[in-house]
Amino acid sequence: MQAEIISIGDELLIGMTVDSNAAWMGRELTNLGIEVFQMTSISDNREHILKVVDESLNRSNLVLVTGGLGPTSDDITKKTLSEYFDMKLVQDERVLENIKNLLRNRGLHLNENNIRQAEVPEGCSVLNNKLGTAPGMWFEKEGRVLVSMPGVPYEMEYIMENHVIPRIIDHFQRPYIKYRLVMTFGTFEAHLAEILEDFEREMPKMVRLAYLPASGIIKLRLTARGGDEEETDRILNEQIDKLYEIIPDYIYGLDGISLEEATGKLLRDNKLNMSIAESCTGGNISRMITSVPGSSDYFTGSVIAYDNRIKKEELGVSQQDLDKYGAVSEEVALQMARGIREKYRTDFGISTTGIAGPGGGTGEKPVGTVWIAVSSRKGFYTEKHNYAFTRSNNIRRASLASMNLLRKTVIEEMQKC
Amino acid sequence: MQAEIISIGDELLIGMTVDSNAAWMGRELTNLGIEVFQMTSISDNREHILKVVDESLNRSNLVLVTGGLGPTSDDITKKTLSEYFDMKLVQDERVLENIKNLLRNRGLHLNENNIRQAEVPEGCSVLNNKLGTAPGMWFEKEGRVLVSMPGVPYEMEYIMENHVIPRIIDHFQRPYIKYRLVMTFGTFEAHLAEILEDFEREMPKMVRLAYLPASGIIKLRLTARGGDEEETDRILNEQIDKLYEIIPDYIYGLDGISLEEATGKLLRDNKLNMSIAESCTGGNISRMITSVPGSSDYFTGSVIAYDNRIKKEELGVSQQDLDKYGAVSEEVALQMARGIREKYRTDFGISTTGIAGPGGGTGEKPVGTVWIAVSSRKGFYTEKHNYAFTRSNNIRRASLASMNLLRKTVIEEMQKC
Repeated sequence: MQAEIISIGDELLIGMTVDSNAAWMGRELTNLGIEVFQMTSISDNREHILKVVDESLNRSNLVLVTGGLGPTSDDITKKTLSEYFDMKLVQDERVLENIKNLLRNRGLHLNENNIRQAEVPEGCSVLNNKLGTAPGMWFEKEGRVLVSMPGVPYEMEYIMENHVIPRIIDHFQRPYIKYRLVMTFGTFEAHLAEILEDFEREMPKMVRLAYLPASGIIKLRLTARGGDEEETDRILNEQIDKLYEIIPDYIYGLDGISLEEATGKLLRDNKLNMSIAESCTGGNISRMITSVPGSSDYFTGSVIAYDNRIKKEELGVSQQDLDKYGAVSEEVALQMARGIREKYRTDFGISTTGIAGPGGGTGEKPVGTVWIAVSSRKGFYTEKHNYAFTRSNNIRRASLASMNLLRKTVIEEMQKC
Repeated sequence: MQAEIISIGDELLIGMTVDSNAAWMGRELTNLGIEVFQMTSISDNREHILKVVDESLNRSNLVLVTGGLGPTSDDITKKTLSEYFDMKLVQDERVLENIKNLLRNRGLHLNENNIRQAEVPEGCSVLNNKLGTAPGMWFEKEGRVLVSMPGVPYEMEYIMENHVIPRIIDHFQRPYIKYRLVMTFGTFEAHLAEILEDFEREMPKMVRLAYLPASGIIKLRLTARGGDEEETDRILNEQIDKLYEIIPDYIYGLDGISLEEATGKLLRDNKLNMSIAESCTGGNISRMITSVPGSSDYFTGSVIAYDNRIKKEELGVSQQDLDKYGAVSEEVALQMARGIREKYRTDFGISTTGIAGPGGGTGEKPVGTVWIAVSSRKGFYTEKHNYAFTRSNNIRRASLASMNLLRKTVIEEMQKC
């Protein structure tokens, strides 16, 4: 079972847009046990689209196409596919209704371009797109399948998750492949690989281990390919149990859970709450925490104290310590965490203060120096980090590290109870 | 003059790695006036590499290949290219020397795999890679060129900048192509296309317009292809001036500037500063503002008032209004913006309060309802939005809308001075 991915759009070829869609779809297809043979990006050009679509469908059972479905005249994918499959474009009432609803919610009225978006090739299956005006389309030809979707990532993901993946599971026979993710934080790939050398050697033959690092978080992907479903699942669970024994301090969860979700779940399950005082992370920890639906159950609020005046006036950091140790110091981090916890009357307060870069570094405190702190009713914890990444990555690492310090603190304090 | 990009590596096809290399090279080639015809990603498979390389070289004058040059046995690009070009692999002393130096600096010693990395196809031009053990290779065949480079982004970029781009400029004749971006916010693609219908019709033939929407921001890309450099630039500037006349309210800047950069620049240029009170955006506006280096010049700090208690205690929102109008209301948004401005003593305060979803909506206030406000020393401005996206996209849209409201307020108040 082999698939291909075609991405259509001038913006890809001139490098204005990085094709994250293809990678997203590649991951999903791999999870379904489908091999991705080729990914091809081409511009909005009729002849080229026809040629690449034909070649792909001749090679592979399934072809996923994104892009070129917008309302403007440079978007020609739909017209070209209707030509390729020899289907007439006809208006679809359900698509038109969806477009009207979307526009009404946005306070706009229907124009000619929108009406054209409601036309679909007669004979394809229309895949409803709740999030945008261009629907997905599922074409079948001699047992092979081509799916066309918009290039806007969240629209493509919506259509994949709600329509395409369920249909692929129905339509194609695939081997039983299962994969699990063990989520780790707090160390480096090379170090993990060293610790897990024996584990890897002793793994059953049907299981494969891959390291997937993503700026701080390293996912360990265990893939098992077997005949028997129950047996495969059992073997995977055994391997996960072994990993928990070998690296308990690094594992924060399973199967794609984010550090903010894991931290939030821990707080909610224990009826605890938190507040945040951010300096160098500039709101990023708050954003990550509140990206989780329902985070108001355990997150009260934050002070982003970018200016030292705010650190003093709002968080009670002492001017003397600011003068003596500087804003990027253990003392200031600690006073910020305690300050926000007491002011916002929460169980935990966390804080960051550092130099995100690219400017502002000194010999003693180079760019990437970050102090993080957690204050609880029972005590406090601090960590110093020296990152050497870009500004955005330094901010991301410091945000993850402070959430992880909170997570470990909660676990430790709950165990002592 | 047409080019293609081939990316080799299993990790691309299973979606573990997003192919940012192809986009980077696409940008560089476009800047050189070279059209990128196709980007193709394939796995480390001999037959498939041979086929795709041959097809690309038959279609295009220049083929850039990345990946598959690592030291492990699954990396077969070099061997396969030496087969394709019918060249023997021979040891290159300068490459070997470079590898020895790199390993010495990392405290490692030479092994067999490394020695194999010093072999290159006899007859290609070796492109020195100061940053890694795999060199770049420049092949010529009947006037056409294929370049092979490692897949590690900074190594590829080093080889491109120091070797490949200078050689391309020497080797190929190219037309003059220039593109500019006009950045817009505040409307939808279909609406812009309608307003710009006449503009598009009247554009000189050498200019092309494309719409590049990215969750709220729509970039208008004008591409001009001409013989004369000065004339081409002049024509592009004329088109940009026309756009500023037609849609002055939607354009916030040029050439890829972000809304947070444009807003920040405006504040800095006018020696103004700001503070933020966020509810539904949960820290995202603060994060965007502080993602810009040097934002401490105009950003003082924020209160993330997720809990209504924080809205009252820290921002002075009245309990009576919370009861009467609810937290998601014009009155509360306004009191939050005024509250943070007065408390943090800044020129401007901005605020958001809304329902990001997926839960929390009501009949009267569905998910996606957001009130935003800007408070200045001279007055206040509010806007109500009804988004119908995912949680993360609702948050992003509300963040952009509030920055844009601040930007427009600053411009308006400065004009009145």
